[in-house]
Amino acid sequence: MNIITINLNKDLDEPIYEQLYNHIKKEILRGNYDANTKLPSKRQLSTYLQCSQNTVQNAYHQLIAEGYIFSKPRSGFYVSEIDGIIDLEEVVGDEYGVSKVVSKQKYDFSHQGVDFDSFPFSQWQRVTRETITEEDKGLLESGHPQGDPNLRKSISKYLHQSRGVNCSPSQVIISSGTEYLLQLLIQLFNKDCIYALENPGYEKLSMIFKRNHASYKAIALDKKGMIPKGLEESGANVACITPSHQFPTGCIMPISRRIQLLNWANEEPARYIIEDDYDSEFKYSGKPIPSLQSLDTDGKVIYIGTFSKSLTPGLRVSYMVLPEELINIYKEKLNFYICPVSNFQQKALCKFINDGYFGRHLNKMRNVYKKKREMLVSEVKKQLVDVEILGAKVGLHVLIRVRNGMTEEELIGRARDKGIEINGISKYYIDKPIQEFEPMLLLGFATLEKEEIPEAIRLLSIAWAMANTY
Amino acid sequence: MNIITINLNKDLDEPIYEQLYNHIKKEILRGNYDANTKLPSKRQLSTYLQCSQNTVQNAYHQLIAEGYIFSKPRSGFYVSEIDGIIDLEEVVGDEYGVSKVVSKQKYDFSHQGVDFDSFPFSQWQRVTRETITEEDKGLLESGHPQGDPNLRKSISKYLHQSRGVNCSPSQVIISSGTEYLLQLLIQLFNKDCIYALENPGYEKLSMIFKRNHASYKAIALDKKGMIPKGLEESGANVACITPSHQFPTGCIMPISRRIQLLNWANEEPARYIIEDDYDSEFKYSGKPIPSLQSLDTDGKVIYIGTFSKSLTPGLRVSYMVLPEELINIYKEKLNFYICPVSNFQQKALCKFINDGYFGRHLNKMRNVYKKKREMLVSEVKKQLVDVEILGAKVGLHVLIRVRNGMTEEELIGRARDKGIEINGISKYYIDKPIQEFEPMLLLGFATLEKEEIPEAIRLLSIAWAMANTY
Repeated sequence: MNIITINLNKDLDEPIYEQLYNHIKKEILRGNYDANTKLPSKRQLSTYLQCSQNTVQNAYHQLIAEGYIFSKPRSGFYVSEIDGIIDLEEVVGDEYGVSKVVSKQKYDFSHQGVDFDSFPFSQWQRVTRETITEEDKGLLESGHPQGDPNLRKSISKYLHQSRGVNCSPSQVIISSGTEYLLQLLIQLFNKDCIYALENPGYEKLSMIFKRNHASYKAIALDKKGMIPKGLEESGANVACITPSHQFPTGCIMPISRRIQLLNWANEEPARYIIEDDYDSEFKYSGKPIPSLQSLDTDGKVIYIGTFSKSLTPGLRVSYMVLPEELINIYKEKLNFYICPVSNFQQKALCKFINDGYFGRHLNKMRNVYKKKREMLVSEVKKQLVDVEILGAKVGLHVLIRVRNGMTEEELIGRARDKGIEINGISKYYIDKPIQEFEPMLLLGFATLEKEEIPEAIRLLSIAWAMANTY
Repeated sequence: MNIITINLNKDLDEPIYEQLYNHIKKEILRGNYDANTKLPSKRQLSTYLQCSQNTVQNAYHQLIAEGYIFSKPRSGFYVSEIDGIIDLEEVVGDEYGVSKVVSKQKYDFSHQGVDFDSFPFSQWQRVTRETITEEDKGLLESGHPQGDPNLRKSISKYLHQSRGVNCSPSQVIISSGTEYLLQLLIQLFNKDCIYALENPGYEKLSMIFKRNHASYKAIALDKKGMIPKGLEESGANVACITPSHQFPTGCIMPISRRIQLLNWANEEPARYIIEDDYDSEFKYSGKPIPSLQSLDTDGKVIYIGTFSKSLTPGLRVSYMVLPEELINIYKEKLNFYICPVSNFQQKALCKFINDGYFGRHLNKMRNVYKKKREMLVSEVKKQLVDVEILGAKVGLHVLIRVRNGMTEEELIGRARDKGIEINGISKYYIDKPIQEFEPMLLLGFATLEKEEIPEAIRLLSIAWAMANTY
């Protein structure tokens, strides 16, 4: 401990040394100073607190006399170990492990997370180490508000090659999560803007718009994605969609619907489409489907992507590509916001991409996830009856429709009783309407080990009383 | 290059191989593929694009024939170096180094940045390396929405010891900048909330409130800080202040004013004070002044701090301490936001603090900055006439009042002509009122080397035609 901060007040009846003594005693009793922590020297503390050394000495002697601290000859003063010290954490009743995102269940089918065993720890460690260097004073500066120019260049090249996105690095904005990007977009667009959201869709979207006092409409989907008629009638002017792998239904929007939506956007100047391309790096069969942005010739599509699925959510790096017109408005209105991603992290990620690690990691993971998905689908077919598998062969989750007469709530509850975390589709409906639909459940497979899948599905079959074998 | 993404369309008149050939040719001409980049193998690309190997072979042969690519026996196909390739960057006119925060002037007195030569690169490299480990799968998860519990514990201990802040780790929220924290607070408070801002004050504050459609009032200051009468009359209910080192005037709010403001807050349930304690780690003389939060017994003060001054702005880590009541509202309304700071960075910072590096760095920097400040003050006194030095001996900037008959604009312009970047106080007035005041200028001294200061001040004395020696 270097210092102890207390406002010593000479005008009080209580002598100064006693104020100091009482303060330190209280801190020790509340557990704020760990046992065996070294206290500041008398000289240090008296200089810092602008009091005489005698004051500190008197306080320390009193504390030694009462056993709160002890002195080591030629070393200094230390906090004693005291039985029955009140732990401040316990007193305040803090359970700051609360609302941990990853469940404590045995098998977790939630759609978040990535494969824990495949993260390239040693490569990440290496690029991180190599990028922290005294020569690069740029690491210590506030940096470009849109994010590191080199990282933006790498991202735009990658997006062009893998997703057909057309953009220059100057159109890229790097941020620390899709949530933060959406908050920037809400500030970029006019206040009276109305957002059209997929229903069902990513559950946080409506919360973000609500908390930022932005208007939104829930638009129904068919098998092709957001229904143009519903969008048109809603009066919304910015449509938020996931065309490459609709969340949560798993559909891929066909070219016909894409063109319909682009036409809708082209009808009015203030209309835009936000394309959230959250996990389409992982497409396991069929032709690659370029992003909606790649079809857009009129600057109507805002493309959003993330490293949360392709690398890890623990990194907190996402990005968006704005059309020229919007990037100009961005520079005018929002350029004062500093990019929230650390320079150290941006530089490491840039090196990770440029040195080819990222491309290799993606290829590896495409294989890992493909095998997990195949295992999952085959086990579901083998072990679960009355179950239909939905969704395209893309991304990190599949959807199943269960027809055994149970409600979604029952299915989830029974799974949980067997140690299985699983989400139902109704969670993703905006404002949770009481709708009549057959129970559908999401099976995210990224965090599960491939070998765990048969057992997890076996437990589901027992939970849902649908065992195929007698 | 692992893949090339293009939507090959069989229904077009143009043969498929020609579509592929044209795509690659265009990419090379636009400079999207660097010279000597390896193209995907015929097998890889045909599998990926779901076309025959013949299609790829025909396209590649055509490209070889025209000199766009070349083949290396037993290795593969590579992009040729082509004279006169159009650089996409140039075409789009991208100058993505625009609005660089750090100036290109010879001597920079702006208040941003830290001492470049004192950042503990090797220690930071070490803790970073040691925290990236395969055993810690927690790094790959989304983590706690308020930030890593261990880092919150370290921060709350540090704040208690150095700033007298009373809090448990459960009250701490970690984020990636004061800007982001303020946006969270705007969402936490009611929509009709009115914010009182110091005038002059930190220039980004009013922009953040404006962009988020929150109401604010500019409140005048006297030598003690925000004037209670002005605050009372404004009708505002949340006061944003910098009591430990007012930005930009440099005053320390005395205890009497602190109590007045706390009393103001206590008069109504919806009143709060946001205390921005941005650089008070660096106090060079006199008694330590604990935070306003340490005086607050009624849960009225929100404490905001940052590692931008104490470590580096490149790290992008800040934090706030919410009173119990507000933390409960936070958990209810905003817990869905993921902490924007990377897990890797949080873990490294936590280790950096717990291993004692942070405390030692602060002590070292207090000395470094103290000496720079002394040098600056002594050189100003020696070389500049008609100049008064204002502001307490805290933080990383001083304020000077210049009385040589020039306007603030003239002073800044003449300094710039001599290669000196300097800001005037009028920049920090909200809505820039045409006010009559003597020119005052900010001299930030963090990024300048101590040895540079005499020369920088000499140039100022020439620029302002006030040379003391003839």
